[in-house]
Amino acid sequence: MRPVEKCGVFGIFGHPEAANLTYLGLYSLQHRGQESAGIVSSRDSTLHSYHGMGLVSEVFSREIIASLPGEIAIGHVRYSTAGASHIKNAQPFVVEYSRGSLAVAHNGNLTNALRIRDELEAYGSIFQSTMDTEVIVHLIAQSRERSLADRVVAALQQVKGAYSLVFMSDHELIAARDPNGFRPLVLGRLEDAHVVASETCAFDLIGAKYLREVEPGEVLVINEKGPRSIKPFEKTTNSLCVFEFIYFARPDSIIFDQSVYAVRLALGRQLASEHPVDADVVIPIPDSGFPATIGYAQQSGIPLELGLIRNHYVGRTFIEPEQSIRHFGVKVKLNPIKDVIKGNRVVLIDDSIVRATTGRKIVKMIRNAGAMEIHFRISSPPITYPCFYGIDTPVRKELIAATHTVKEVEKYLTSESLGYLSREGLKECVGDRDHSFCYACFTGDYPVPIPIRPEESQMTLFDREDRNQ
Amino acid sequence: MRPVEKCGVFGIFGHPEAANLTYLGLYSLQHRGQESAGIVSSRDSTLHSYHGMGLVSEVFSREIIASLPGEIAIGHVRYSTAGASHIKNAQPFVVEYSRGSLAVAHNGNLTNALRIRDELEAYGSIFQSTMDTEVIVHLIAQSRERSLADRVVAALQQVKGAYSLVFMSDHELIAARDPNGFRPLVLGRLEDAHVVASETCAFDLIGAKYLREVEPGEVLVINEKGPRSIKPFEKTTNSLCVFEFIYFARPDSIIFDQSVYAVRLALGRQLASEHPVDADVVIPIPDSGFPATIGYAQQSGIPLELGLIRNHYVGRTFIEPEQSIRHFGVKVKLNPIKDVIKGNRVVLIDDSIVRATTGRKIVKMIRNAGAMEIHFRISSPPITYPCFYGIDTPVRKELIAATHTVKEVEKYLTSESLGYLSREGLKECVGDRDHSFCYACFTGDYPVPIPIRPEESQMTLFDREDRNQ
Amino acid sequence: MRPVEKCGVFGIFGHPEAANLTYLGLYSLQHRGQESAGIVSSRDSTLHSYHGMGLVSEVFSREIIASLPGEIAIGHVRYSTAGASHIKNAQPFVVEYSRGSLAVAHNGNLTNALRIRDELEAYGSIFQSTMDTEVIVHLIAQSRERSLADRVVAALQQVKGAYSLVFMSDHELIAARDPNGFRPLVLGRLEDAHVVASETCAFDLIGAKYLREVEPGEVLVINEKGPRSIKPFEKTTNSLCVFEFIYFARPDSIIFDQSVYAVRLALGRQLASEHPVDADVVIPIPDSGFPATIGYAQQSGIPLELGLIRNHYVGRTFIEPEQSIRHFGVKVKLNPIKDVIKGNRVVLIDDSIVRATTGRKIVKMIRNAGAMEIHFRISSPPITYPCFYGIDTPVRKELIAATHTVKEVEKYLTSESLGYLSREGLKECVGDRDHSFCYACFTGDYPVPIPIRPEESQMTLFDREDRNQ
Amino acid sequence: MRPVEKCGVFGIFGHPEAANLTYLGLYSLQHRGQESAGIVSSRDSTLHSYHGMGLVSEVFSREIIASLPGEIAIGHVRYSTAGASHIKNAQPFVVEYSRGSLAVAHNGNLTNALRIRDELEAYGSIFQSTMDTEVIVHLIAQSRERSLADRVVAALQQVKGAYSLVFMSDHELIAARDPNGFRPLVLGRLEDAHVVASETCAFDLIGAKYLREVEPGEVLVINEKGPRSIKPFEKTTNSLCVFEFIYFARPDSIIFDQSVYAVRLALGRQLASEHPVDADVVIPIPDSGFPATIGYAQQSGIPLELGLIRNHYVGRTFIEPEQSIRHFGVKVKLNPIKDVIKGNRVVLIDDSIVRATTGRKIVKMIRNAGAMEIHFRISSPPITYPCFYGIDTPVRKELIAATHTVKEVEKYLTSESLGYLSREGLKECVGDRDHSFCYACFTGDYPVPIPIRPEESQMTLFDREDRNQ
Repeated sequence: MRPVEKCGVFGIFGHPEAANLTYLGLYSLQHRGQESAGIVSSRDSTLHSYHGMGLVSEVFSREIIASLPGEIAIGHVRYSTAGASHIKNAQPFVVEYSRGSLAVAHNGNLTNALRIRDELEAYGSIFQSTMDTEVIVHLIAQSRERSLADRVVAALQQVKGAYSLVFMSDHELIAARDPNGFRPLVLGRLEDAHVVASETCAFDLIGAKYLREVEPGEVLVINEKGPRSIKPFEKTTNSLCVFEFIYFARPDSIIFDQSVYAVRLALGRQLASEHPVDADVVIPIPDSGFPATIGYAQQSGIPLELGLIRNHYVGRTFIEPEQSIRHFGVKVKLNPIKDVIKGNRVVLIDDSIVRATTGRKIVKMIRNAGAMEIHFRISSPPITYPCFYGIDTPVRKELIAATHTVKEVEKYLTSESLGYLSREGLKECVGDRDHSFCYACFTGDYPVPIPIRPEESQMTLFDREDRNQ
Repeated sequence: MRPVEKCGVFGIFGHPEAANLTYLGLYSLQHRGQESAGIVSSRDSTLHSYHGMGLVSEVFSREIIASLPGEIAIGHVRYSTAGASHIKNAQPFVVEYSRGSLAVAHNGNLTNALRIRDELEAYGSIFQSTMDTEVIVHLIAQSRERSLADRVVAALQQVKGAYSLVFMSDHELIAARDPNGFRPLVLGRLEDAHVVASETCAFDLIGAKYLREVEPGEVLVINEKGPRSIKPFEKTTNSLCVFEFIYFARPDSIIFDQSVYAVRLALGRQLASEHPVDADVVIPIPDSGFPATIGYAQQSGIPLELGLIRNHYVGRTFIEPEQSIRHFGVKVKLNPIKDVIKGNRVVLIDDSIVRATTGRKIVKMIRNAGAMEIHFRISSPPITYPCFYGIDTPVRKELIAATHTVKEVEKYLTSESLGYLSREGLKECVGDRDHSFCYACFTGDYPVPIPIRPEESQMTLFDREDRNQ
Repeated sequence: MRPVEKCGVFGIFGHPEAANLTYLGLYSLQHRGQESAGIVSSRDSTLHSYHGMGLVSEVFSREIIASLPGEIAIGHVRYSTAGASHIKNAQPFVVEYSRGSLAVAHNGNLTNALRIRDELEAYGSIFQSTMDTEVIVHLIAQSRERSLADRVVAALQQVKGAYSLVFMSDHELIAARDPNGFRPLVLGRLEDAHVVASETCAFDLIGAKYLREVEPGEVLVINEKGPRSIKPFEKTTNSLCVFEFIYFARPDSIIFDQSVYAVRLALGRQLASEHPVDADVVIPIPDSGFPATIGYAQQSGIPLELGLIRNHYVGRTFIEPEQSIRHFGVKVKLNPIKDVIKGNRVVLIDDSIVRATTGRKIVKMIRNAGAMEIHFRISSPPITYPCFYGIDTPVRKELIAATHTVKEVEKYLTSESLGYLSREGLKECVGDRDHSFCYACFTGDYPVPIPIRPEESQMTLFDREDRNQ
Repeated sequence: MRPVEKCGVFGIFGHPEAANLTYLGLYSLQHRGQESAGIVSSRDSTLHSYHGMGLVSEVFSREIIASLPGEIAIGHVRYSTAGASHIKNAQPFVVEYSRGSLAVAHNGNLTNALRIRDELEAYGSIFQSTMDTEVIVHLIAQSRERSLADRVVAALQQVKGAYSLVFMSDHELIAARDPNGFRPLVLGRLEDAHVVASETCAFDLIGAKYLREVEPGEVLVINEKGPRSIKPFEKTTNSLCVFEFIYFARPDSIIFDQSVYAVRLALGRQLASEHPVDADVVIPIPDSGFPATIGYAQQSGIPLELGLIRNHYVGRTFIEPEQSIRHFGVKVKLNPIKDVIKGNRVVLIDDSIVRATTGRKIVKMIRNAGAMEIHFRISSPPITYPCFYGIDTPVRKELIAATHTVKEVEKYLTSESLGYLSREGLKECVGDRDHSFCYACFTGDYPVPIPIRPEESQMTLFDREDRNQ
């Protein structure tokens, strides 16, 4: 069953331009998912929705936004994983059930979705998508509770895993975050309206004020009476995703009550302390490696330079000539500035290494540009385990650090040296004093049990091909 | 709940080019629905599907057909009714349930779908479309029977109304027709493959041989062992839709075991006998009025001429100038040949009158072209009741013959005379000796009970706006 | 050089909705060309234009029509010939030259365009299209005359061949027809506005009144002072294209001052007189064979029936299965009604035979449907020579009647008999007493000299591939 | 007449994948023009071309590249200026004339194009576009010289202004640069093939080796015999566009034989020397302000931080809510990182100021984010005159520095201070010892005479609306 991984969610209650502001919010969250986008709004007891494949700015037109009336709206952006780019998997998910219409946007990944789905199907339930989100909706429809809030709580008490959810009916907005708080979810205010979003950067664009996090284990019901907080789950330790800080969130966001940029800067400084090197220049792999590079340069005193230029016009497909061009794949995105590299000892900074194939190509490209030495520095520990809580990582055997020592990875990269940030250094940079973060991708210590056959939660059980026009 | 009205269905089992032949079959059935088209095929336990809005030739490309592999396929074309042109209502309908994947294509209209849906939702079922077909699928999913055939039978025993259905799983094709046999469904053979379709014209294009009708009340299970016929319903009288002969089916088809063209010719002859007139020329309203006009001309001896030319390039939208043009709407489609009309007494033949607004415009256009007299002849009786079995008719108050006498309709049309075919004449032309046809639209005698508030079955219960890209 | 063959032209002067009415006019002339459509309008000394590939109803939207302001407009529809479907060859052709802007729409084919183009290029002229129309524009631009009318006359005095032209500047509309009058061009009036069009059917839709033909050799200048007629050419005999009556024009049009339908009816009657046969039924090849079939049936007394049904949803491309289907190509468009054909002696009527390949397939399809005998009757004489005046015919060797006797064609068609209309019969039906028609496709007597290497005028000299997005 | 401003050109001779490599070259030059893209290739004496509106990666598909065969190709990307986005203005420009086919791609702006066009039209020439490039083509067509090279030289001797041109016939590639050398043009080699491009970044992607500049006043003829250099113009001083270094070229390119990145770094250092300030942080306006910011930080010792994050998913249109959002326009692209700014004295670096409206919004946005002081530093002198040589600048009255003192601009920007780089500083940074650069936009000293009514060369003379589908 398909995890709903690497997504962004947004919701607003009580604003006459709810859909347009949701559109802007999604636009700010675009880095969390570029495959599809959707918005649902409500007016006169009717939900209005529109979904499309592609970027927010491509999917929505002025006419479409105008066709989404009302003062409540939720939206979703979804990440593209190969082979599953179906419009039917676009969110928010909208259904009709006995109590009316319901829409939901989900960021995260349930670890017991398959088992629940099997049970539901055994009793005759029909599933229309391959998303684990649909399990939650079925549980809500089958709940005997009367209010939507109670039904949502009843459903969430049955599911396990990571979720930051935004529900809407025709008169209510409900935000919910799993008890461990894996994925971020923040609450803000715009005049009389309340807004929730995956990151605060969505608030900045629409001019909303950041109030606080939706807390781990909190179900926040927002209607005409204002927000009401429910804490229906047993208290557990927090397991905030540290990878949001390392790579995934936007640097101008505040998540988990800290500035992402400040954390990344600290990671770079810590990296310089842990892995100093005598070099002439420190260069980032753009754009995500930038903040850590600034930190590294500040701490080490080695001058920062732009050594790689990123082409921002990269399209989705690319027509390669038959006659091969060296390092073509990486050259399409990055080009070295010879002037900066030639004859120099280069420190190259990236935020993480997954398979190391791109890193190897970049090292060779920089070597070709005339670097004397290349020292690769990574502002995170080695990734040795897959994520089951909503980040799209490959299966374990494809994670180079899971199967190779640091020395072996260094050799593969062909760099003069390689330095990963230590787990302790990471912990210190995020200020984790009470074990409130999830480091499972680095340690394999999963705070919520994962399926026995873990691949199941990382693969689609069935992947019926269906593409609407 | 939305009836699945005015549709065409097709299915094939046991041919290596199943999807391509389904495409051709749908192409031949295009007159039964121009809103959307879809095909589902099966290979390696997986259903592959594609749906799109528009004509068959627009929706499918060579690449799409190639992406629908396997030896089993079903297809569907759907008619456009205003406001409900959603891709989510395109068929075949495909779902996952405990026993795997299932697809279904439906022509007809269930009369108790709303009531069943209410019950299902009360027990937590979630509906994804507004089509009554979905009720059948839920009933199949909840059946405790083991084989698909038994589950289909169990489901159909609960629904009432009109249906010609084609189901497919990954290894089986099942065709089913309601006990009254309202809508046509025919069985054919192409080499080793079996095919079912709404009309035989779909067989002609692919070179399949017409074997027989799928009989009223028959469930025909086609798999590797060949076809197996089940008759699970109590015997009832047939109620074949007479309007298929009058207007809906293609003249080159055989349905209900008779040639559509031959029936229409007979209707025209009978009309001439019942409503003779002294005139110079008899002209058809193209294209549907043609066969009856030939019959009328043959019987009356009045020469047939083309008096109205139809523009076959009519697009879906049309940009009308602000300054009004007389009879513009009808002129876009039809233009009179003055030479044929000027100074002549004209007999004008059409197959039916619903609202009479177009007929009135045509009469005025022909009058403007110089006709001395205009005698309107209709090759069917007055339509006085709406259809609840799958033909798209307006609510009763919009049927001009339901609220006006023939004299009043004649006056509205501004023709010198108006003659409808008699019910007895119609009966005789279709050779109905044992009351095996449905004449409800002319008589109000509904062979299967209709909902107490009949509008319910003609309107959508809810019509959530959702448009996929 | 590419002849501008098989096109429709339209122009209007003095109406506030000039572009919208041009759109409607082109819509009515769609049968004259389906490849591309274009409209040019004028306001405030500026020409506004829009061209697109496809049908009129596809190319233009309300927004586009609204972007074409002013009270003067001309339009053009163009026929698709394989391989030359370039947007750059769409008309009207619009250029800037020393006296301002000029647009022109052309129906016809110049016989000396290549020679003039060679001369113009030798003096440094640059051509932007492969259309012979561009030669006229260059000659206008190089003329030393002062008024546009005089420049047009000066240009037309240098070209030879067939042309019905509509020019517009920012304040004037000029219609011109070659001295022989090969192609039709009619003048009408709509309130204070004047309109010109290839056929009168364009007037019917917009409610304009037919005034008269633009005469052969007439140059009609329409501006704020009203129309002014110039006859600048030496008097010559008329050479009206008889094939417009046989096939090309719409049956509801008046061209060359006669009803097209009436002529076709007469052709059918004459055909019955010349080639009687003892048969049970006479059937048309739809749609173009219809009027002649009515005439044949009337004259012969043999009953007319619909034996072939045409599918009007035929798309531009068609996905054929790999496994061949008998007569597939023709079946996509036509399907026989067995009931009409089986056991009968059939007279089959078509308007003309070019290559006979389709006719052969139709005969076989009717034979398969059970015909006892098939008698093919053609309402025109054998086509034995290509046209150089604007009708798209193949080169001579592909015309079956140019290389085979009637007996041989009959054998190829596999029909029991074949009868062509005689030339004398044709002449009588069009009422040609003073040799005012062109019969060159039947006789090879070309009224205007054709190029020594005739292929040149039928082929493109160069066919640069250029496709705009 | 429309200047062909802000464009990129590419050409290749002698490679079997000429079109594909041109596609890659254009992709690397995308920053020089995003409005339209086009490629022309040659095989078998025929030119093949394709043009489209949009980005290179959107315009071309694998099929289209495959349809552009041959070993010679040229390409062009064009910048979008409001209102003139017509496919007909897309380049390369392709024409037919007496000697065959010719294609040309142009970067620059002719200053006497209008006058020449008037003369050509007076002698009957017809123009198809509103681009000044077309004047060159007409002059070539009218030249009496025999070889293409000689005709090109003859044509270029009549035009004045800025041009870097790439011509191709079916067997030859010709690159030409105006005598002043305003715009860059570089020569490279890829195996046996020769390539020319606006910047060396196009060589990097395809793996070509940079050989040298095409020199000012050089006409380089490349055919099967290899390259042949002609210097047909009188020697004049160089006038290399200094703005290419400041803003326009990619930082990873070498143009005018210097590294763009190195120059920008030097500009930032010089700026710090000329305008030091006591501050806490120096931040770039991304992405173009980056290199100068690094230089400023290095020279001043003030730490560089990312204070503004750029959204790289910005689409072409943006749906703004009716209720205004503060600084909305700039927020869509940029968002401040409060953590970096709050309580700090900020140095803000940009490469240039044109109208200052965006700069003013950025200052306010940073102020809102909590900056104590904002010191705006610009790595170029005040722009006080428009460019007539191919850079798209507004008319003079819209250049804020043309009408306001530095103090007034500072006040408008609402920054605590404003510092522009001095002209002398700029001169030093680009190493201009022999007056070989053009500084006209800063000084008004135009090295090539501009039209008396300068607006003419900055506006379209006529701007006929024509949009192809």
